[in-house]
Amino acid sequence: MSLLADLQNILDSEHVLTGEDAAPYLKDWRGRYMGKALAVVRPSSVDEVVAIVKLCQQYDTPMVTQGGNTGLCGGATPSNKGDAVVILMTRLNKILNIDTENDTMTVEAGCLLQTVQEAAEQAGRLFPLSLASEGSCTIGGNLATNAGGTQVLRYGNARDLTLGLQVVTAEGEVWNGLRGLRKDNTGYDLRNLFIGSEGTLGIITAATLKLYPLPVAQVTALLAFEDIATGITILNRAKYGFGASLTGFELISSYCMENVRRGMPEIKMPFEPEKAPWYALIEISDAESAEHARQLFEKVIEQSFEAGELADAVIAESQQQSQSLWHIRESIPLVSARLGQEIKHDISVPISKMAEFVAVTNAQLQTLLPGVKHAVFGHLGDGNLHYNVGAPDGQEEGFLDNQKAVYKVVFDSVSAFGGSISAEHGIGQLKKDLLLDYKDEVELALMRKIKRALDPHALLNPGKVISSVERY
Amino acid sequence: MSLLADLQNILDSEHVLTGEDAAPYLKDWRGRYMGKALAVVRPSSVDEVVAIVKLCQQYDTPMVTQGGNTGLCGGATPSNKGDAVVILMTRLNKILNIDTENDTMTVEAGCLLQTVQEAAEQAGRLFPLSLASEGSCTIGGNLATNAGGTQVLRYGNARDLTLGLQVVTAEGEVWNGLRGLRKDNTGYDLRNLFIGSEGTLGIITAATLKLYPLPVAQVTALLAFEDIATGITILNRAKYGFGASLTGFELISSYCMENVRRGMPEIKMPFEPEKAPWYALIEISDAESAEHARQLFEKVIEQSFEAGELADAVIAESQQQSQSLWHIRESIPLVSARLGQEIKHDISVPISKMAEFVAVTNAQLQTLLPGVKHAVFGHLGDGNLHYNVGAPDGQEEGFLDNQKAVYKVVFDSVSAFGGSISAEHGIGQLKKDLLLDYKDEVELALMRKIKRALDPHALLNPGKVISSVERY
Repeated sequence: MSLLADLQNILDSEHVLTGEDAAPYLKDWRGRYMGKALAVVRPSSVDEVVAIVKLCQQYDTPMVTQGGNTGLCGGATPSNKGDAVVILMTRLNKILNIDTENDTMTVEAGCLLQTVQEAAEQAGRLFPLSLASEGSCTIGGNLATNAGGTQVLRYGNARDLTLGLQVVTAEGEVWNGLRGLRKDNTGYDLRNLFIGSEGTLGIITAATLKLYPLPVAQVTALLAFEDIATGITILNRAKYGFGASLTGFELISSYCMENVRRGMPEIKMPFEPEKAPWYALIEISDAESAEHARQLFEKVIEQSFEAGELADAVIAESQQQSQSLWHIRESIPLVSARLGQEIKHDISVPISKMAEFVAVTNAQLQTLLPGVKHAVFGHLGDGNLHYNVGAPDGQEEGFLDNQKAVYKVVFDSVSAFGGSISAEHGIGQLKKDLLLDYKDEVELALMRKIKRALDPHALLNPGKVISSVERY
Repeated sequence: MSLLADLQNILDSEHVLTGEDAAPYLKDWRGRYMGKALAVVRPSSVDEVVAIVKLCQQYDTPMVTQGGNTGLCGGATPSNKGDAVVILMTRLNKILNIDTENDTMTVEAGCLLQTVQEAAEQAGRLFPLSLASEGSCTIGGNLATNAGGTQVLRYGNARDLTLGLQVVTAEGEVWNGLRGLRKDNTGYDLRNLFIGSEGTLGIITAATLKLYPLPVAQVTALLAFEDIATGITILNRAKYGFGASLTGFELISSYCMENVRRGMPEIKMPFEPEKAPWYALIEISDAESAEHARQLFEKVIEQSFEAGELADAVIAESQQQSQSLWHIRESIPLVSARLGQEIKHDISVPISKMAEFVAVTNAQLQTLLPGVKHAVFGHLGDGNLHYNVGAPDGQEEGFLDNQKAVYKVVFDSVSAFGGSISAEHGIGQLKKDLLLDYKDEVELALMRKIKRALDPHALLNPGKVISSVERY
């Protein structure tokens, strides 16, 4: 018998893909990573996942788990060796349970994030995880990468939204940890160990998630100001003035604003990008009313004007205006993809270091590559910037060849400021070697010990995050 | 050389305690666990902790880390073998840094929780972890046990309040993970693995904690109603009406109220314990004003009255009244200790199962021991009850002999309802064997693998939580 034949005994042959059928799952959506595989398999149940894992162990065959294939670091793409099986989770797509009294829902890992959001909303609840790819990413992928998004300031990242997991271990055993408990101090925190491990420690097959009340109103405002330090002062005003109603605080540079104007002239802007060097899109999710949210905004913005912090400010007068302000923010990555090549960094630093980090790093990059563009935006409230570097005018061609040198400048600086080289996108293939450069040896050694303990034959998503043995 | 002599080379002899000097640290504060040790050592720096750990490894000597010794499960008390060294962390008690722009503080593990709270408040910030022993417990102990307390509903438990850790590993290496980042997806979640591991995987020496805005006003109300199901309806009204301003929702049975009246007649109660079978103490932490908080209360309480849910309700008119309502709740454990023997359970179940759990378990206990008292109170908003069982009238003597039988009824029921046998107090010695009864084998096997990986010689707090080898 061969592995392929055995797989076909477990699954209908239409769910064991090879050749052309397998191709879409062997590259990432941006086309940056390409791999090969023995087969792409599509289980529809936990039992089938278990059977696949046991077969792969028997044949000493690497396994790469894939959800919606929307990752940015190549974590779900197999290597070029062609020795792996890709396990596609999208047929495990059932909403298993919604419990509105406990404010939890239990879903299979292959559910699209948007399906999860919609099911929660139909039950009169909010599942707050929200990110650009929500129409095609799976909740299992969100958990494997501990996804962030736009609501982290209030609700936390995927980890913070999860109470329980079901996981198939490297040996093909099922850990049934689908607990809907907000407090449970019975032993080691396995849940958080699997979350964010990018399929290298186990295969997440289902999760119990936290639900929240739907806000009565969401109102946004756009504020224009001189520098990041002022933005942080305003952030602190907003934290105090709005309390936990503050659900978004997004920083946007005028350069990004200008790009949106150029690339998407159809988008209405409340003021010209020349108004000020920096902008903040602030969102309140109010438990009372839109009017109450606007009153809170007026009070804080008035204080901020009086303190001389603001060049201008506009509060959305309607839900449509609120969405239109969000549209500016959400268009930034799309527009930058249209307008030219960028070297992207998803980094975090302590918020108190943010202004200095940007000033110092910008200057170092101008020394390295005079004229580069600083396309800086992101989740200031979380200390997370998408610190992107665009080609100098007229030097677009071959600009990405500078990636390694630009990475070094930016990540050295991130490291010096006590930051993270991957705030929300994970490690995958992209940053696996960088991890060795920027993590201390003790932490790497602890990670390798855990990897060896839970996946002794190094078959789970090898070549991603960290290697415990010389296999990869 | 001997271990003792070597320890005295590292520390001043006044910090290597034996005999009478060591005695206070060899039993828990309630006097339920007694142990022996080669010595109790009091390091004052991470370097000293490292040196102690390396010596203990060299001499194959178990290490028991102890903070304020306020635990309830014997997790910080050594065994009777007398072969261990107790490492007392209370001299590592410096506030290392407060960063109000990043809303973080970094503290050594031996800081008292109250010291941490006060330092935060002096900087104009809130560190929300709050529990009865805050004047004598250490933040390191809070982290080792993932402490809960009264503010979990809004702010989460100790785990949720922690961004970074410094840990001395079993081998005496230092993991410097004191990161003040709200987003960091660079590898496995070591932080949460150490938090809640009760000193069995490493020794937490410092932590970077989250800070929050100080609320402008905290207002409480006490509501009286017929049954737990109604309490849950009111909880959901409160979640919707107050949004994230809801910081406390404590359930109290009329039996507990009656005990407070009997045991502490000096405490003023807004109504007689006969008013209704159940009560909820609800707290709003408001970002605007006390008046605003009271308006929110009035609205929700009015809805609740109109729906026929309430027997009575009172909203605190002043901060003093708010504190006085909290005082009732906080007096319950003290009073029950005074009035008689109780078999205590710190459990959680999904909130949607709470009413049924209490009804079913009460009935089973009445069958087992007719006339037992149900001293039920706790954090309904977190699904966490202190489900305590008091002796029938006149049968106080020897009542604790029923502990094993009562545990079995209660924990079997908890398990049947998908709950946790230790919601916030941990496992320690007390529930180590119970863990084997109520955790599934796959989860236990995963825990043992992690224990073996990080503490291969089983020297870190052996005999607590879980054993990886036959040593204990």
